[in-house]
Amino acid sequence: MIHPIPPGTRDVLPDEMRELRRLNRRLIEVFEDAGYGEVATPAIEYDEVLSRGDRPSSASPYRFFDENGNLLALRSDMTVPIARLVATRFADAPLPLRLCYLASAYRAVLPQRGEMREFVQAGIELIGEPGPSGTAEVIGVLEAALDAAGLDRAVIGLGDADLYRGLLTEFGVEGEQRDAVLDRLATHDLVGLETTLEAAGIGATAAETCVALSQLRGGSEVLDRARELGGEAVERTATRLQETYETLVARGTADRVQIDFGLLRDLGYYSGAIFEVYDPAVGHVLGGGGRYDDFLAGFGLDLPAAGFSLYLERVHVAQMEEESRRRERAAADV
Amino acid sequence: MIHPIPPGTRDVLPDEMRELRRLNRRLIEVFEDAGYGEVATPAIEYDEVLSRGDRPSSASPYRFFDENGNLLALRSDMTVPIARLVATRFADAPLPLRLCYLASAYRAVLPQRGEMREFVQAGIELIGEPGPSGTAEVIGVLEAALDAAGLDRAVIGLGDADLYRGLLTEFGVEGEQRDAVLDRLATHDLVGLETTLEAAGIGATAAETCVALSQLRGGSEVLDRARELGGEAVERTATRLQETYETLVARGTADRVQIDFGLLRDLGYYSGAIFEVYDPAVGHVLGGGGRYDDFLAGFGLDLPAAGFSLYLERVHVAQMEEESRRRERAAADV
Repeated sequence: MIHPIPPGTRDVLPDEMRELRRLNRRLIEVFEDAGYGEVATPAIEYDEVLSRGDRPSSASPYRFFDENGNLLALRSDMTVPIARLVATRFADAPLPLRLCYLASAYRAVLPQRGEMREFVQAGIELIGEPGPSGTAEVIGVLEAALDAAGLDRAVIGLGDADLYRGLLTEFGVEGEQRDAVLDRLATHDLVGLETTLEAAGIGATAAETCVALSQLRGGSEVLDRARELGGEAVERTATRLQETYETLVARGTADRVQIDFGLLRDLGYYSGAIFEVYDPAVGHVLGGGGRYDDFLAGFGLDLPAAGFSLYLERVHVAQMEEESRRRERAAADV
Repeated sequence: MIHPIPPGTRDVLPDEMRELRRLNRRLIEVFEDAGYGEVATPAIEYDEVLSRGDRPSSASPYRFFDENGNLLALRSDMTVPIARLVATRFADAPLPLRLCYLASAYRAVLPQRGEMREFVQAGIELIGEPGPSGTAEVIGVLEAALDAAGLDRAVIGLGDADLYRGLLTEFGVEGEQRDAVLDRLATHDLVGLETTLEAAGIGATAAETCVALSQLRGGSEVLDRARELGGEAVERTATRLQETYETLVARGTADRVQIDFGLLRDLGYYSGAIFEVYDPAVGHVLGGGGRYDDFLAGFGLDLPAAGFSLYLERVHVAQMEEESRRRERAAADV
């Protein structure tokens, strides 16, 4: 007898659960070895408190009233609750503060797109360490986590959250038209991007710059290619990306990193460096992160911060795919 | 700056989190060593599906609509979702089926009573093994879990869910009056019990029997004391308890078990044997369980079943208390 569960949720049976537990343990070990202490927060919080982050990501689609008529919400990520936790419990702690988590979060879904309504995230937050050194530390931990999961082929795309905001301001595109362009960029909708740029009435050269930038990814050589496209926003971004990339090279953790001028994460709280993780074995982004230097101010704490989160289930799928690929290659080599 | 979280929820900081992870691991190891495979289910399900259990416990206080207008609910325990899972995915599996879990659940609270809105439960479900042998297996695993947590002094109270239903039917007490009496028994409200028994209009002897039974706990000697109080319901219960207790003795797992004629768990799906765990170091019940032989029928599966769940946070508090007690005694012995 079939008793359905909501699209975007799933049951996990014992064989898979044992593998997930093993993966969990490995990731937490990597985080703790890097000095990150695990925390847990409630899955349900006051909607008004979560909204102090005041960004789209904190708007949970699942809200309900408690016994006193207060509006509660299911968390949609861990960055917002950890910002709340840090402001409340760690405001006077020595900096930088290093925290990690492994927790379920909840989002609205378009089930036909295979989106997840409930998912487990494993991640870290580095609070109080600014600029390239903070970003490079976070990316270093992310690389160690991917190593621990056996994802040798995973790639980290590194971009900048402020690039297109700045570029569109330079081009004089504001308001709804700006949001429409950013949305097409975030979804990598090239046709839609060209249409919205045209609708925004910017010149052909500016539109070409925008489209060309969104296609630009590779090693440090793309920094020069971007600069050739010109403009202050591009120059600022290229300088920042170069600084971060050079820090990564100096730390020996740039191998998996690909500079990506087309990257645009849809969570509104990022500023400066952003990154996403891909593995050739799976079609979905495995996770991502970035700097959110202005975000903690919403909770009364003016501190730079950066972090990442991995979708545990997707990392597990990629892990299985990579293992079976290695087995096949080993068999072929015999 | 203080950003409040809802009463009955909590943040867990790194030191405690490490201890909780260790406790989690130990409990899952005990369950797996006993042949129980861990499963996970969504925290949010269709309210209509959870309600197929059709008992008070499945009525989640947290409900909300999905994008298609379906009513979703946060689970209030794991027994209902696992019943749903078993009926859907394991209907043809060889019996008995042994499953375990470690998962958050959500309930309405009276915060002034220190109740938990969000809590982690660790437990097992044994499906397809009837009567005393199934009950004894579940209690055996519970004892191993308490050992693994270092709770040497924890006691398991063993009672029968059908006793007072049967007894009150014998006494001709039905409907709301019956519910009122059962409620006073469940909350161990002796004064309220006497008042409601009087209001139900049963004779003084019957009322005394009811009150005396509710006070009766100890080793196998209480079985005879109960029988002296007379009546068919008491006889049925005493026979069943004796059989279970003797099975436990034969398996060498009766040491922590205390027969308790006053036990009445407030989850409606139990039938036959029920039990609760206490530790002298803490004031709250650490967990409990019992048989729910009629419950799976609500999901289309007519199988006997039993299980238990422990409140992880309370077990952890008891663990800390017992450890500090052992340290104090060791220091006093020097």
